[in-house]
Amino acid sequence: MAHGRGSIDSAALESPVCIVGGTGALGFGLALRLAQAGVPVVIGSRDEGRAQEAARRGADRLPGATIRGAQNADAVQGCEIVILSVPFRNQSENLTNLKNVLQPDQLLVDATVPLAAAVSGKATRTLGVWQGSAAQQAQEMAPDGVRVVSALHTVSAALLSDLDHRLAEDVLVCGDVKADKQKLSSLIERIDGLRAIDCGPLEMARIVEQLTPLIISINVRHKVRAGIKITGL
Amino acid sequence: MAHGRGSIDSAALESPVCIVGGTGALGFGLALRLAQAGVPVVIGSRDEGRAQEAARRGADRLPGATIRGAQNADAVQGCEIVILSVPFRNQSENLTNLKNVLQPDQLLVDATVPLAAAVSGKATRTLGVWQGSAAQQAQEMAPDGVRVVSALHTVSAALLSDLDHRLAEDVLVCGDVKADKQKLSSLIERIDGLRAIDCGPLEMARIVEQLTPLIISINVRHKVRAGIKITGL
Repeated sequence: MAHGRGSIDSAALESPVCIVGGTGALGFGLALRLAQAGVPVVIGSRDEGRAQEAARRGADRLPGATIRGAQNADAVQGCEIVILSVPFRNQSENLTNLKNVLQPDQLLVDATVPLAAAVSGKATRTLGVWQGSAAQQAQEMAPDGVRVVSALHTVSAALLSDLDHRLAEDVLVCGDVKADKQKLSSLIERIDGLRAIDCGPLEMARIVEQLTPLIISINVRHKVRAGIKITGL
Repeated sequence: MAHGRGSIDSAALESPVCIVGGTGALGFGLALRLAQAGVPVVIGSRDEGRAQEAARRGADRLPGATIRGAQNADAVQGCEIVILSVPFRNQSENLTNLKNVLQPDQLLVDATVPLAAAVSGKATRTLGVWQGSAAQQAQEMAPDGVRVVSALHTVSAALLSDLDHRLAEDVLVCGDVKADKQKLSSLIERIDGLRAIDCGPLEMARIVEQLTPLIISINVRHKVRAGIKITGL
């Protein structure tokens, strides 16, 4: 289905998707694209005012879309899928704050990348995470019963936000439960031009998270906004 | 330029390319594709007889191609580009054996991947290499003046060897000297359907080498022979 700027698929009566960190570049771009595809979106932020301001900006660009903003702890309520899209330096704090809020039936999608930029290092380098990856750290910190899927590390925030840009790339998905990955993949593929690819168990996030600095290195060198596509599928 | 099975571009009077480990699956596939593109190829092996046997197999499939086999130390003589295509468990030994053989004007292309399979682990996992990557280990072990470029981790050996298969994927190249990367990229792009992409300095091999286990995981899961393509370029 082709979308013109600002057009929206008919919003079904479905569970909204929460984007914790939806005021950031990647989170906001995702919010726009999902809302455009007719998915109700809740933008979460530590600051309620900023969340609502971002939701207003989204609604301005997509009249008729279902986007609202709320403080993170409220934003996640009733959302089957919660996407965590925050800088690595804030991931642990966010997960601590959500510890008593996330419910066992919720799927937590971790999009965190442990860039060395978190400690003033280069964005083409990463930090070692004790658990192996940011996603595995998320799994360790998530309340019992909340399952974690890792995804959305390689799609350009700028291209997501540019609704005139036709996406044509893959989203690599890692997780330990097939049904969870399928659920997220169905959501991702509602965005025109994105294909979700199951890359294996959550531990593969160790590798997939490294693709962000690789793409940043390619972007800097070639002055592009690169993405990944898997051939042969 | 389209190639039919067995057709060869006119072999120029050019420096041959040596493939250390050219009897292995990836090395042999590369040898075939390069020879088909008209590049003179020397297949190197620790065992001269195996090298010559592989060269014969190649020549049988590509009548008119320039492929010969030799023991590694002889094979590298006079080759501007030496591709090291060996399992990680043999990389260090091979580099030790080449220490007094490689010359400062030669370009060493490291295609080694530190798969955990080297120590009976999974092929979807890697070992930590003290220097950061197999390529950086190669740079440390190479004689003074020999520069290392890292590449060719994601192209399927089986698809390279299947000359009827039309390749359509990227080869990610890392190295500290732009001219070296350009030299290798020109060689790689003589193979129909391969595009070489400069991914930054040699340290980026830490990431690019991880793409092999990622692709193995995708291959196992989806029963394909996957490769990588960078979008947006």
